[in-house]
Amino acid sequence: MMRTARDLAEFLGAQLGGDPDRPIRGLAGPEQAGPEDLIYCDSARHLDRAEASRAGTALVPPGVTLAGKTVLQVPKPKLAFVRAATLVIEPEPLACGIHPTAVVAPSARLGPKVTIGPYAVIEENVEIGAGCEIAAHCFLGRGARLGEHCRLYPRVTLYSGARLGDRVVLHAGVVVGSDGFGYVRDDDRQWKFPQIGGVEIAADVEIGANTTIDRGSLGVTRIQQGVKIDNLVQVAHNVEIGERAVVAAQTGISGSSTVGADAVVGGQVGIADHVVIEQTAVIGAQAGIPSGKRIHSGQVVWGTPARPLDKFKRQYAWQARLPELAARLARLEEKLGAK
Amino acid sequence: MMRTARDLAEFLGAQLGGDPDRPIRGLAGPEQAGPEDLIYCDSARHLDRAEASRAGTALVPPGVTLAGKTVLQVPKPKLAFVRAATLVIEPEPLACGIHPTAVVAPSARLGPKVTIGPYAVIEENVEIGAGCEIAAHCFLGRGARLGEHCRLYPRVTLYSGARLGDRVVLHAGVVVGSDGFGYVRDDDRQWKFPQIGGVEIAADVEIGANTTIDRGSLGVTRIQQGVKIDNLVQVAHNVEIGERAVVAAQTGISGSSTVGADAVVGGQVGIADHVVIEQTAVIGAQAGIPSGKRIHSGQVVWGTPARPLDKFKRQYAWQARLPELAARLARLEEKLGAK
Amino acid sequence: MMRTARDLAEFLGAQLGGDPDRPIRGLAGPEQAGPEDLIYCDSARHLDRAEASRAGTALVPPGVTLAGKTVLQVPKPKLAFVRAATLVIEPEPLACGIHPTAVVAPSARLGPKVTIGPYAVIEENVEIGAGCEIAAHCFLGRGARLGEHCRLYPRVTLYSGARLGDRVVLHAGVVVGSDGFGYVRDDDRQWKFPQIGGVEIAADVEIGANTTIDRGSLGVTRIQQGVKIDNLVQVAHNVEIGERAVVAAQTGISGSSTVGADAVVGGQVGIADHVVIEQTAVIGAQAGIPSGKRIHSGQVVWGTPARPLDKFKRQYAWQARLPELAARLARLEEKLGAK
Repeated sequence: MMRTARDLAEFLGAQLGGDPDRPIRGLAGPEQAGPEDLIYCDSARHLDRAEASRAGTALVPPGVTLAGKTVLQVPKPKLAFVRAATLVIEPEPLACGIHPTAVVAPSARLGPKVTIGPYAVIEENVEIGAGCEIAAHCFLGRGARLGEHCRLYPRVTLYSGARLGDRVVLHAGVVVGSDGFGYVRDDDRQWKFPQIGGVEIAADVEIGANTTIDRGSLGVTRIQQGVKIDNLVQVAHNVEIGERAVVAAQTGISGSSTVGADAVVGGQVGIADHVVIEQTAVIGAQAGIPSGKRIHSGQVVWGTPARPLDKFKRQYAWQARLPELAARLARLEEKLGAK
Repeated sequence: MMRTARDLAEFLGAQLGGDPDRPIRGLAGPEQAGPEDLIYCDSARHLDRAEASRAGTALVPPGVTLAGKTVLQVPKPKLAFVRAATLVIEPEPLACGIHPTAVVAPSARLGPKVTIGPYAVIEENVEIGAGCEIAAHCFLGRGARLGEHCRLYPRVTLYSGARLGDRVVLHAGVVVGSDGFGYVRDDDRQWKFPQIGGVEIAADVEIGANTTIDRGSLGVTRIQQGVKIDNLVQVAHNVEIGERAVVAAQTGISGSSTVGADAVVGGQVGIADHVVIEQTAVIGAQAGIPSGKRIHSGQVVWGTPARPLDKFKRQYAWQARLPELAARLARLEEKLGAK
Repeated sequence: MMRTARDLAEFLGAQLGGDPDRPIRGLAGPEQAGPEDLIYCDSARHLDRAEASRAGTALVPPGVTLAGKTVLQVPKPKLAFVRAATLVIEPEPLACGIHPTAVVAPSARLGPKVTIGPYAVIEENVEIGAGCEIAAHCFLGRGARLGEHCRLYPRVTLYSGARLGDRVVLHAGVVVGSDGFGYVRDDDRQWKFPQIGGVEIAADVEIGANTTIDRGSLGVTRIQQGVKIDNLVQVAHNVEIGERAVVAAQTGISGSSTVGADAVVGGQVGIADHVVIEQTAVIGAQAGIPSGKRIHSGQVVWGTPARPLDKFKRQYAWQARLPELAARLARLEEKLGAK
């Protein structure tokens, strides 16, 4: 949507320098930008890139000007840039009306302005809140419930009874509510433990492509408000992920573990079962948290098994020097005729 | 399905205490249970939770009673609980009849009581055994063959020629029979090695959401009876997984490796090519097994490269003490004027 | 397609021994082959297996003959085998014509001989080059562009604007162009950084089942010509993978990292953001490359954090001997009364 520099200055509370009528139709990086694009420059180091850009308008720190450009001065240019995106960029529609090929059960209840793409399947007693967009090939199992303004990209699968809050975004191939992995061994047979619990995803959660979220076995798997999960992540039965926590790609969280609010979990992390990660903890990429372990609030851990980052670094430094330590030990032994 | 405590006592061979006509309509955890739910209590530690529950009936160890509840005394309450589930809980149907939108090739042969959901595609010469349920959006490539009573959740993809035994359960997004990853490099080109083998999944196998099982290159990829595989697992070409083995989420098994019967493979394990894991071996989460390595029957291994658990623990303990060892070495050197 | 040994000898430039009219209808491993199959034998070690095979024709090194078989002598039998496959094996068609259930937008442009399977969805302004095969349940978002002779297996999802070159092969469940994972934290809220860039996949790329490739945030995610990517791999926003690089299963490549031409990346590798892997580097399975790190051309690295293979091996060897080193140190201390 076309905006002017003035529109954005008002929206962001920015100090405007240059032409207030400069049109802004898009956002871009400095190298890709055209005259009607907005760029941002967060630090003095990148002023050259900003100045060399063809962009007409730039978000900059207070006091900075750029020759030939309209500037919007704000304390946090990157944050202002993402906020500006909400004004300038309209999210592309995922579907248009209810496509005639969508199979919608008569008992499903659809709020106003819901759109559903081709070949989507909506089973009995599904409830879909106002303004939700359901793309092609999505499957919403019986009794699934969506809040308002959710966006489900193509071929999202919700098993029966899954619940989503408002503004939940699920990318292509996400599976919510699949059976958890639990068996009881008896002689020559694995008996499947019942996987009949629920799965609840709160408002403002976004989940990346092909990620899988299992339902609870008897209890509920819960993803709290504002959580962001990347692609190809595995969330097992009865896991709880606290508000605004961030989980990077290919991480796996095993049964009954909890991740606290505002925690940050890197990519390819393995979290065993019954782990407690307290709020604001940071788990480094590829770390492994053993079964039953507690990571305390604010801790930064690394490695497998995970330990505090400074300890990890110290141990690792000595590990790299192991051949040298061994040589020094051998010299002492020789000196003492000890070996 | 409604049962009475008496029904269950008979089915499980349990000793009944309390009201034999107590109705049981569901299974639950102690905290979620209502009066018509069955719970289980495996150990004395959890008796308080069981006693505080609203559940009307509880599976308990021999000799245990709970005030106000009907009890079913059995030697293994958890095992009895999962067996009770097969009596009380009817698995929900994945489809209802043959949906009119399903595209079924005329040459496909469907056994009695097969159900197929909306928009499923069944290609030429597919055979589907009695009582199979094929959910919406599944794709069964030409010549695929299913035994009886399989359950394929939405958008399972079987490449052509894939074979499933009886009672195989595949969760949403599973891919069976995709091409293996094999190329022969020649100067500036990667030539694809033919991936024209088969894939055979035996009876009673269950495979988790978005897991991928490649077909053999020339031979066959085989998953034997009773194997359980979690979500997002990768099984490469020509792998063989033995009976009742269990493979946790996000593990990868490379080409031509074998996992023995009753082996247990943790989550995020990496098994390189041509590895042999003998029966009943246990591979700890995140372990890495190097190419060509053999893990002996009954061994428990950990770490990358994987080594026996006790060795891993000893090494790890000293690793944590490396800074201390280095300090002690430096003191000796000083004492001896050795450095 | 039926060929004769003579056809193949001509195609491969092989020296023929035995019956030139021997029919060849398939390729197989020695144990599975029948009389009309071609096998290969790369080394003297495997001559026994070749001789015992029922195959009628074998690719062998120069000078080798096999009793009762027609032989094709070539310097590189395995390479000749994969080249022979292109002559003997016709790839099976993924679709047949334009299936009447395919939803194709009027504005989509289809080249000659394009085939589209049941329930595929082709949105506005998509361009599909000559001879492309689009299997059932694929979704091609608006403005996506495919070169010629691409093969998209069932339920591939291309987000809007994704671009593929010629002869690109995408296996079932692949997602191309999903949003990258980028948020800007402000007090109690995660603001989504715009994920509005492009994704370009060059000619002759093959991508495995359920792999995910994110679009650029502002720039472009690029997969160059001839790259081969295995199953369940994650490629984040703004990544670039150079020509002919090979990436094994379950590897993750974080934002803005580059993998050079002809690099080989093992399975389950974690590459953090802003990493540079130069051309021909080799990254061992499960390795972890920290943020911002550069791996030099031709280097072979291993471990987390990744280090050169010989260094890794030396450190690892001493790590295994840590308990012994500690014991030797303790003996010295005792001798010196130092503790």
